[in-house]
Amino acid sequence: MSSVPSSFALPERILLGPGPSPVPAAVLGALARPTIGHLDPEFLRLMDEVRDMLRTVFGTQNPCTLPMSGTGSAGMETAVVNVVEPGSKLLIGLNGVFSQRLADVAQRAGAEVTTVDVEWGRSVPAELLERAAAGRKYDVLATIHAETSCGVLQPLEPLRQLADRLGALFLADTVTSLGGVPVDLDANGIDIAYSGTQKCLSCPPGLAPVSLSERAMARLARRTRPVQSWYLDLTMITRYWGQERVYHHTAPINALYGLHEALRLVLAEGLPVRQARHRRNSLALAAGLEALGLELPVAKDERLPPLTLVSVPDGIDEARVRQFLLHHYSLEIGGGLGKFKGKAWRIGLMGHGSSRQNVSLCLEALTRALAAQGFTPRGDALAASGAVYAAS
Amino acid sequence: MSSVPSSFALPERILLGPGPSPVPAAVLGALARPTIGHLDPEFLRLMDEVRDMLRTVFGTQNPCTLPMSGTGSAGMETAVVNVVEPGSKLLIGLNGVFSQRLADVAQRAGAEVTTVDVEWGRSVPAELLERAAAGRKYDVLATIHAETSCGVLQPLEPLRQLADRLGALFLADTVTSLGGVPVDLDANGIDIAYSGTQKCLSCPPGLAPVSLSERAMARLARRTRPVQSWYLDLTMITRYWGQERVYHHTAPINALYGLHEALRLVLAEGLPVRQARHRRNSLALAAGLEALGLELPVAKDERLPPLTLVSVPDGIDEARVRQFLLHHYSLEIGGGLGKFKGKAWRIGLMGHGSSRQNVSLCLEALTRALAAQGFTPRGDALAASGAVYAAS
Repeated sequence: MSSVPSSFALPERILLGPGPSPVPAAVLGALARPTIGHLDPEFLRLMDEVRDMLRTVFGTQNPCTLPMSGTGSAGMETAVVNVVEPGSKLLIGLNGVFSQRLADVAQRAGAEVTTVDVEWGRSVPAELLERAAAGRKYDVLATIHAETSCGVLQPLEPLRQLADRLGALFLADTVTSLGGVPVDLDANGIDIAYSGTQKCLSCPPGLAPVSLSERAMARLARRTRPVQSWYLDLTMITRYWGQERVYHHTAPINALYGLHEALRLVLAEGLPVRQARHRRNSLALAAGLEALGLELPVAKDERLPPLTLVSVPDGIDEARVRQFLLHHYSLEIGGGLGKFKGKAWRIGLMGHGSSRQNVSLCLEALTRALAAQGFTPRGDALAASGAVYAAS
Repeated sequence: MSSVPSSFALPERILLGPGPSPVPAAVLGALARPTIGHLDPEFLRLMDEVRDMLRTVFGTQNPCTLPMSGTGSAGMETAVVNVVEPGSKLLIGLNGVFSQRLADVAQRAGAEVTTVDVEWGRSVPAELLERAAAGRKYDVLATIHAETSCGVLQPLEPLRQLADRLGALFLADTVTSLGGVPVDLDANGIDIAYSGTQKCLSCPPGLAPVSLSERAMARLARRTRPVQSWYLDLTMITRYWGQERVYHHTAPINALYGLHEALRLVLAEGLPVRQARHRRNSLALAAGLEALGLELPVAKDERLPPLTLVSVPDGIDEARVRQFLLHHYSLEIGGGLGKFKGKAWRIGLMGHGSSRQNVSLCLEALTRALAAQGFTPRGDALAASGAVYAAS
């Protein structure tokens, strides 16, 4: 390159897509604190507080609870490669991009994966999985608690019971639920969970909180061969996050400053309050969207509060709508993914972004964007969403 | 947990250990810019500039040049798992912790690894490797260009020639060399290189720049089975960093803001100037340490400018010295690693931290710390280091 680029000037965006979510100023400020060493006694104290706060947010006493040094997808791979080895049996229902991804990760780790196709936009019924299991035992039953590709919340209890019948560890992807929807690992009997920081925790992407039960750790201890990934090997990483403080890799110091602050804000608000906020704002958004005459493909009782899937009406160019929102409102929503590509939008109300003002702004901006393509709203979106707030 | 912790108050440290290195205020400030989406057109522009600047710093035209979403060790794993599959043959000399780690990573990926033990603190002689190869062909010849565990700089040319004779791709760990020591991938015929951000680039840890030659990419394209790691699979990640912009995982947005600014500062200083600075300050440090009567185990012509290994004198408690420096000077140096644990210190003068004031401060503080344990310096460290500056 011939010349040195300038410092990068960035626009401010209102992030109402599938993540990253808006990051509070206090978290951004924490990122900018001076870097210190990954074995500095002061940094080790911060790690302990991060670990303790993560346990509270996950709803667990699991000793093995820590943020991996990668994004949510690294959390998925961590969850899989530590408990799976060649020949392990894993069972999963496919109802979106992230369950497909999990099956792919498990196959690359040598697992024998049984998949069951489920309609996208629906949760996975335990009966369907049990039929596919056909009486076989499994090592892992995996589920996507919050399918970010189609906005579905998976009921956990039936799958938990099935996992017990199959002799399987219960693995749950909580990337888009942690901090916005009850996760409660211990109460729900989840053995292996992972998440990301850029959804309902409102921290920038780059870390993947994970938590493994004692049963899952016992499975890890009984492995016959090393974890295929050195970088994600929890037998070593837990020695850095535990009392021994054995160096494994250099932790992403500043990202952990941000996570500490983000978790603090979550707990200061209180998990039940925060979850109720996510629920209320998503109901108000849904009411507004339906008032406009838009269709939400996911059944009411399976909708994921942090992420709403909206069908693109006939004759509307979905990408042009997103460009309109970005250009005129500096507002980001997501396009569809996988089977919903080009057919749906994904509107995220996650963490700091789940607010009444964002619901109003989104409905107003979307109305304008659709009007620009000749779409006539059926009714008054703001009145419909306002009614939800008035009733709650 | 019963109560919410306070925002974390951090000490400021002078980071003269094996990394992280001190991060300039402009880079810390960049980290705190508002998060935007990983598919936002403005963010894609930033990615392009990061990629172009990385090419310049690596000294390469390789299209596949990008930062992986993990720390330097994730870079190592990326380098290995993309070009190695079960049965691949890899040859490496073991002269420190990071060559051992690379051999471990390769074995976990199913490679047949030939290792050659070399004295720690010495570079790896090509003849030794060639003898071990015993006429066999290899897929990869791997080397640690800058051994952070013992401060050795590996001459590349003899290994490059050997790789050609073995029919092997040439893989180099440039974690502690990139930005501080000439790396010049294209001129040195390096096919696969990786680095970290927290050494001579003076960015916080969390990203791993990698670069693969066209030959290495051709090897990747000829694989018979998928890369074992979904998260580190370059066949997919290059589609996000390339023109297609296909979503793979959510990029660590704010960390990339930091890297953009850090690379800018590297190029604004100029690589040759920066490398000369690293060389000059390390010569001055070495002169000062030797004047004190301390021994540097690495031979003069193999020393790594960003990291100096210093033997702990008889009768000195090495951990107490580091505690003294941290307590009285808020100054961090590193302890020994692997075979040098308890026997040596590692003093880093990396990136922003490679400065005359840090050389003077380190020599002064170390003199006091040793005096506190009854060590009498042989001569005047500051005069000896000053003579180096005067002569250069």
